[in-house]
Amino acid sequence: MPVEIKSVVRTAGGLLVKFTHNSEEIGLPMTASLFLPTNALSLNEALADSENKYPVLMYLSGLTCTDDNVCQKGGAFSQCMSSGLALLCPDTSPRGANCPGEDDSWDLGTGAGFYVDATAEPWSTHYRMFSYVTEELPALLRGAFPVCDTGRMGVTGHSMGGHGALICALRRPDLFRSVSAFSPICNPVACPWGRKAFAAYLGSAEAGAGHDATALLAKMAPGEPLFDDILVDVGGADSFLAAGQLLPEALERAALQAGQPLTMRPQPGYDHSYYFVSTFLPEHIRWHAKRL
Amino acid sequence: MPVEIKSVVRTAGGLLVKFTHNSEEIGLPMTASLFLPTNALSLNEALADSENKYPVLMYLSGLTCTDDNVCQKGGAFSQCMSSGLALLCPDTSPRGANCPGEDDSWDLGTGAGFYVDATAEPWSTHYRMFSYVTEELPALLRGAFPVCDTGRMGVTGHSMGGHGALICALRRPDLFRSVSAFSPICNPVACPWGRKAFAAYLGSAEAGAGHDATALLAKMAPGEPLFDDILVDVGGADSFLAAGQLLPEALERAALQAGQPLTMRPQPGYDHSYYFVSTFLPEHIRWHAKRL
Repeated sequence: MPVEIKSVVRTAGGLLVKFTHNSEEIGLPMTASLFLPTNALSLNEALADSENKYPVLMYLSGLTCTDDNVCQKGGAFSQCMSSGLALLCPDTSPRGANCPGEDDSWDLGTGAGFYVDATAEPWSTHYRMFSYVTEELPALLRGAFPVCDTGRMGVTGHSMGGHGALICALRRPDLFRSVSAFSPICNPVACPWGRKAFAAYLGSAEAGAGHDATALLAKMAPGEPLFDDILVDVGGADSFLAAGQLLPEALERAALQAGQPLTMRPQPGYDHSYYFVSTFLPEHIRWHAKRL
Repeated sequence: MPVEIKSVVRTAGGLLVKFTHNSEEIGLPMTASLFLPTNALSLNEALADSENKYPVLMYLSGLTCTDDNVCQKGGAFSQCMSSGLALLCPDTSPRGANCPGEDDSWDLGTGAGFYVDATAEPWSTHYRMFSYVTEELPALLRGAFPVCDTGRMGVTGHSMGGHGALICALRRPDLFRSVSAFSPICNPVACPWGRKAFAAYLGSAEAGAGHDATALLAKMAPGEPLFDDILVDVGGADSFLAAGQLLPEALERAALQAGQPLTMRPQPGYDHSYYFVSTFLPEHIRWHAKRL
């Protein structure tokens, strides 16, 4: 699994590494960014450091984004540095899969992988983002960036990536010790974005129940919480909240019924943008660091 | 001087206001952003606050930038909030002046006003960025945003904007109480970027001496420093430093000769990007806040 380093940039006292690799799950080259909270000035020096192993927070991005959005606008790295946490930022879909229609709309196809393994043609060949982020990327870290401790991973994300964070954690609590989200799509089988994506990738909206955080919570054995808490921030002036795309109340209700502690924080006046995410991401990083 | 509010976004606990206005100096509509460290949830509420007057840090941006770059990537607002400092982010040039050649290269014309008042045709009609940022914008703040205290202003900037910050402060120490810069073009009459810009805007590179921080320091009365300190950060891996565009050593020498205290901090491993600026901007904000 050779990794090609595209750039190494010093920021916030650490190193931000952008790399590509030929993904076996996706069947195409994929790009991701990884922030290492190292004092080293070069990647070689950082990787030679056998004293430190960094816990890893994976940040899953939203519709239309790449790894760049959170790296440039997230305001995350100073806190990652002081918390000693690596931040792994994957892309949001395959690029150049050549599926008919993949570039026709911004909420399906390119930039909109929804963190599921597609089962329906023509998507099923390349659109395997669930396995990519939960299997291949952790294995890649172990191989290419052994300074990362994939035994201590948390996951967070924004919007479509908040949905991704929730389902990755609920489906793989063995892999993720902590989970939080920003303005997540909480109940995709019941909202336009999710129904459209699941209909395409899985054959029907209903087939998405296994990739729907609210539905997954509803299926949990009551009184056996998977996490000590789940932290969710939602902006009060979020136009997608008003449009019924996020449905946080459904997630809250399901968590309550399952006995899964969940802290839902309405944040008055905040919208859906990175001006919102960057406001609270440092606090989420501290919250994860405590649990990792 | 009516101001049209384009957007008000809550971030970092405060409000980020984007506005346009018909600039008299520029003779065209201009856009700028202003962060207010207010707890108010609306601009009206913020402006009705007669208890607080915020000192103002002006951030001048670099070649090709608009007000958006630092707002989205600067990581400044949390620190502005805790320091109680407003951040004013002007654009970098007129837009749509229709000067022949203004869009032919990224280092002259649109996005490249160099914070001078052009005297040569065809630029002299609209390219009046020095008067715009030192006269018109402070007056606009007093009129439209009286919660800003323009009696307590500092200035900073990046690259071309670092040059702008230095010359604005050295020429107008009555207006600016503090000045710092990131990777500034320190001696534009002696570097390719500056010589090209001054030749166009002022008729010759040499005519730029009055807008060159190093030359301005050389003309200062020795032993009569204008500021208690000037803070400058330059990345050690900055490709424009290597290419001889920044010339910080010339500025340092001139400051030493003038007896003007100046703290030049080489920052090992950092490049010219916002990954560098965002690393040190919070510290600059604290540094200015102490002086305002």
